[in-house]
Amino acid sequence: MIREIAELTIKPGSDAAFQAAVAQAVPHFQSAKGCQSMKLEKVLERPDTYRLMVLWDTLEAHTVDFRDSQGFADWRALAGPFFAAPPNVYHTEVVVEGF
Amino acid sequence: MIREIAELTIKPGSDAAFQAAVAQAVPHFQSAKGCQSMKLEKVLERPDTYRLMVLWDTLEAHTVDFRDSQGFADWRALAGPFFAAPPNVYHTEVVVEGF
Repeated sequence: MIREIAELTIKPGSDAAFQAAVAQAVPHFQSAKGCQSMKLEKVLERPDTYRLMVLWDTLEAHTVDFRDSQGFADWRALAGPFFAAPPNVYHTEVVVEGF
Repeated sequence: MIREIAELTIKPGSDAAFQAAVAQAVPHFQSAKGCQSMKLEKVLERPDTYRLMVLWDTLEAHTVDFRDSQGFADWRALAGPFFAAPPNVYHTEVVVEGF
């Protein structure tokens, strides 16, 4: 399992509309091949700053299958207009399971 | 529920020893008041770069209760020697539940 973390900064004053757009985009992730879960999280320490957290079966499920799909285009059409800068995206995998 | 994300960069070549130290520190989080889960994740795109992901009942469970505890001192004694720079720590909360 791979976690996508997308660091998103949005235009000031657009929190409510942005969150509504992301909620509307949930089905595009739900129908994506290899997508296990998706949540939008707000950073407490900095305004206008979010983390999109998506769990994928594999790295390629995100970077190849999803990014080449209509669902990705639809997601970006909904959320993209609120971005103040290009998203910074990286991926992680668990190395110490903890609890 | 609050997610702590600690951005950790470690000294080159110390991955195995660092991961072992974090595994050894798991009980200090398990016994922390208000701590729901803890995992160490490795960033795929950059060497020596990790994310410690911890879920807390409240922000204060981390920033007040844990940071004032012996468990925090014990965690830092185990993991701190591997840090190449001070950790960058922030917190998030879910605003769109997704799935």
